[in-house]
Amino acid sequence: MEQRVSLITLGVDDLARARRFYEQGLGWLPKDAPEGVVFYQVQPGIALALFGRGDLAEDARHPIDGRFSGITIAINQHTEADVDAVMAQAEAAGASILKPAERVFWGGYSGYFADLDGHVWEVAVNPGWTINEDGSLTL
Amino acid sequence: MEQRVSLITLGVDDLARARRFYEQGLGWLPKDAPEGVVFYQVQPGIALALFGRGDLAEDARHPIDGRFSGITIAINQHTEADVDAVMAQAEAAGASILKPAERVFWGGYSGYFADLDGHVWEVAVNPGWTINEDGSLTL
Repeated sequence: MEQRVSLITLGVDDLARARRFYEQGLGWLPKDAPEGVVFYQVQPGIALALFGRGDLAEDARHPIDGRFSGITIAINQHTEADVDAVMAQAEAAGASILKPAERVFWGGYSGYFADLDGHVWEVAVNPGWTINEDGSLTL
Repeated sequence: MEQRVSLITLGVDDLARARRFYEQGLGWLPKDAPEGVVFYQVQPGIALALFGRGDLAEDARHPIDGRFSGITIAINQHTEADVDAVMAQAEAAGASILKPAERVFWGGYSGYFADLDGHVWEVAVNPGWTINEDGSLTL
């Protein structure tokens, strides 16, 4: 199996509410929204989908048994001020701030928020990692 | 907040066991493995980390309350035979097959497996989506 990812799907309780969070709240633009799902083109060349939690559980043949199973998604920023701005924008859009951004032991600056359906995002600066022009990350 | 993802982190119960699954089982090569975490460079320019579930819960200030909270990660393939090969490789490595790959109503071919820590991967072909040379996906 190649070291590759094409799509991240977030199961949501209310698709319209989740779209408002990501679109009006965070400023994302949808690419395609067939019945019951919405797809966003996400840099550097993957997709993120919002999809009903029940539909996702049925599609994956797996009951949803918790609000946080231990997957986080991170969006890395160039500066600490960028991290603060994204955390503030998420909070204004209704996200729950789990950890206000702070300096962390590995030398970076990181905060966490949960979206309206409990999915956990980290917003961070890692001074050892390079975010390229196209948004890609080179370890 | 830009439409961008830098890193996906999977919380795991046993880091050595999880590494064996992704490295010996699926053939992935680690890029960096400081104490308690391992990072993989994943196409098209993001990272995937394995990190202790307890450490992740503490870092995110959020208890882990389930095995599946409704996030799936998909790796799209070029052909149905590629999907079958990846599903067989994952099963041989100890994954639980949630849904054997089958033709689906949206015109594609898709299966799901859970890794050793319950994280849910979809392996799919979507005839409407293009996987570019560099592994990126253009919606």
